[in-house]
Amino acid sequence: MNKIYNPKPETWSSILERPTKTVDDIEATVKEIFKEVQKKEDEAVAKYTSLFDGVTVDTIEVSKTEIDAAVASVSDELKAAIALAKENITKFHTAQKTNRVAVETIEGVSCWQEKRPIQKVGLYIPGGTAPLFSTVLMLAVPAKIAGCKEIVLCSPPDKNGQINPAILFAAHLCGVTKILKVGGIQAIAGLTFGTETIPKVYKIFGPGNQFVTVAKQLATQFGVAIDMPAGPSELLIVADDSAVPAFVASDLLSQAEHGADSQVILVSTSKKLIDAVEDEIQLQIELLPRKEIAEKAIANSKLIFVENDKIALDLINEYGPEHFIVCTANDDFYIDEIENAGSIFIGNYTPESAGDYASGTNHTLPTNGYAKNYSGVNLDSFTKAMTFQKISEKGIQNIGKAIEIMADAEGLQAHKNAVTLRLNAIENGK
Amino acid sequence: MNKIYNPKPETWSSILERPTKTVDDIEATVKEIFKEVQKKEDEAVAKYTSLFDGVTVDTIEVSKTEIDAAVASVSDELKAAIALAKENITKFHTAQKTNRVAVETIEGVSCWQEKRPIQKVGLYIPGGTAPLFSTVLMLAVPAKIAGCKEIVLCSPPDKNGQINPAILFAAHLCGVTKILKVGGIQAIAGLTFGTETIPKVYKIFGPGNQFVTVAKQLATQFGVAIDMPAGPSELLIVADDSAVPAFVASDLLSQAEHGADSQVILVSTSKKLIDAVEDEIQLQIELLPRKEIAEKAIANSKLIFVENDKIALDLINEYGPEHFIVCTANDDFYIDEIENAGSIFIGNYTPESAGDYASGTNHTLPTNGYAKNYSGVNLDSFTKAMTFQKISEKGIQNIGKAIEIMADAEGLQAHKNAVTLRLNAIENGK
Repeated sequence: MNKIYNPKPETWSSILERPTKTVDDIEATVKEIFKEVQKKEDEAVAKYTSLFDGVTVDTIEVSKTEIDAAVASVSDELKAAIALAKENITKFHTAQKTNRVAVETIEGVSCWQEKRPIQKVGLYIPGGTAPLFSTVLMLAVPAKIAGCKEIVLCSPPDKNGQINPAILFAAHLCGVTKILKVGGIQAIAGLTFGTETIPKVYKIFGPGNQFVTVAKQLATQFGVAIDMPAGPSELLIVADDSAVPAFVASDLLSQAEHGADSQVILVSTSKKLIDAVEDEIQLQIELLPRKEIAEKAIANSKLIFVENDKIALDLINEYGPEHFIVCTANDDFYIDEIENAGSIFIGNYTPESAGDYASGTNHTLPTNGYAKNYSGVNLDSFTKAMTFQKISEKGIQNIGKAIEIMADAEGLQAHKNAVTLRLNAIENGK
Repeated sequence: MNKIYNPKPETWSSILERPTKTVDDIEATVKEIFKEVQKKEDEAVAKYTSLFDGVTVDTIEVSKTEIDAAVASVSDELKAAIALAKENITKFHTAQKTNRVAVETIEGVSCWQEKRPIQKVGLYIPGGTAPLFSTVLMLAVPAKIAGCKEIVLCSPPDKNGQINPAILFAAHLCGVTKILKVGGIQAIAGLTFGTETIPKVYKIFGPGNQFVTVAKQLATQFGVAIDMPAGPSELLIVADDSAVPAFVASDLLSQAEHGADSQVILVSTSKKLIDAVEDEIQLQIELLPRKEIAEKAIANSKLIFVENDKIALDLINEYGPEHFIVCTANDDFYIDEIENAGSIFIGNYTPESAGDYASGTNHTLPTNGYAKNYSGVNLDSFTKAMTFQKISEKGIQNIGKAIEIMADAEGLQAHKNAVTLRLNAIENGK
């Protein structure tokens, strides 16, 4: 752990620097696979599934029989836990529904904004050691509430050609319309172009490794939207003597176990707390099954002492953490003044893992400083805002002159003429 | 004009195909200029301003004296028109403010969502023949309402090293914090990396030519967000015998005068209307100063006859027009059922130019089919949604078990431990 005392503001950006990704060498591979999937569709998908996942899948689409078997195999205990999480996520995301915004901006000019669902969305769920069924909840629940018609989930098959039962159970529970055994670059390419079995979608959501991340970026060049650019997960905690060191340490470790490149930062106005947390980390890390991963992330972690809350806040806003835990005597100051953070966890009894699973907030959040300009996934991520306007004869008379003058000043005579014709027609009709 | 009768659904996508952009050859140039601006900052910016705009600008930032002179030189008539437009845009975008969404998802678990402004935004306003001061209103007004702290406007200088007075007037009126005489790729690069005089921003908005469009796309690879991918402007009108042919023709022409690559489409269930609109276009086009441009766009335009409103709607939803004018006996059907469109204009007295200038809706809209997955610029474009959560002892007891089970099933023991420690502490404290 790196302890840093009173760093000068001009050093913050280098202290808090994230690991830079080198995508250039991956990009060529991703482009090649995209080209091949665009051309050869399912044939190319099968080839790369065989190559990367080491398995041949006869039928990409998960069958009803497979889903039934998965539902039967998940323990009642896990089912109940998932149901509770789903209920909270549903409540919080349903509350995010917005009403039609309607304004008569001037007499006779009615304008309104409505949000309508993105019709076809793709959800990517990584495979690997940890079956991320929680991410299924975080993406499929708001997609369903938003009213997306086609909700396509892609996840790589394991060596036996299967998807983890908990993922299938969650997908089925949340109303996913199609589940496909396909992962990696070939999944993103399939969702981008469409193949014989993979539907083309309008927006792709979900986490993934570097290959998936670069593939999602490339997808945007072919007309597909993505939830957000992705990077390694991050947690910044600001805590003082009102915090329980063991709790703080446990939260830092839960971030650290994600991966060796996880960003783990503690900012404090108390040297005592920093030391106590450091000791606690040493104790707790010994007991973790993913100790090796956590140790690497902890080795790169930063424990930063600053003189006061104002300096802490400025430093945190400059960093823009994905997850931000606030546990101080001065919580309201941070809550009110934080400008850049994905999700904020307040007080001793609000661990990050609550938001990761079951409190109701979404865990798909902006990393890598993107909290400065991107929202985490929320209900609106699955909709687009459309505007409507209806103008009466009276209305065009009220704004027509202004339009004519402005169009004229911009040198757009046909724009002006569209108004002039209408004003004349009204005039002549009288 | 191409008249097409009853096209089969399988031909729609080829009939409605947009011109494909070839960005590959531009991309190398853009990348090179980005690299140079990142390294040499203002020196590189000056070099490319001299190269592309043919002028040497001593001071990039527009001075107060220049602004005062611009304000004095704009006619009272244009000032009044801009003031009216600003008022309507302000009303409609202010109405888009959303409240804090707060939910106690389960006893003791409080979750809320708040939108906070993106602190630093860049607005790009193209130069050229048409001084797009209307776009200044469309971007700066919502940026100000959202509460963005730094609003930086870039626009290329003319041969005399000046920015059009109407642009300066509008920028000043709307509270832009810095106006810079810099355009093209070098402006986008400057806003992306920051230079001695150009501030680095978090999100870049605004239209531009192919070079600016590719530059904005490249900016996203350096952590900057953009409003949306851009393409040539589009208008699709659905009209029947309830529409006035002269009005329909004037709207198609106002789209056509934007550029030779503008997309102009009429869909109708009336052959009579199609013929009448065609005649009107021939009459009106003769009178336009930008006739030559409009003629090219009109030559590529499509007049499509379909049997009924249901077919028309399906075709329109497949296209996803940027601007969509509805002028039929069956307007409500289209309003209710349209899934993909940027902005919708309803009835005989609602020309597209109303939305371009003064009705109050935003004119920065998704082109090129992006209406399927992107919102037009709106108040939320200048904010990001952040979530907060505060959990009490009771709250963690209510959801703690579920988190432990789920974290365990995902193989994330440290996530589980962060909850277990807290549950034990509560237990032991009792």
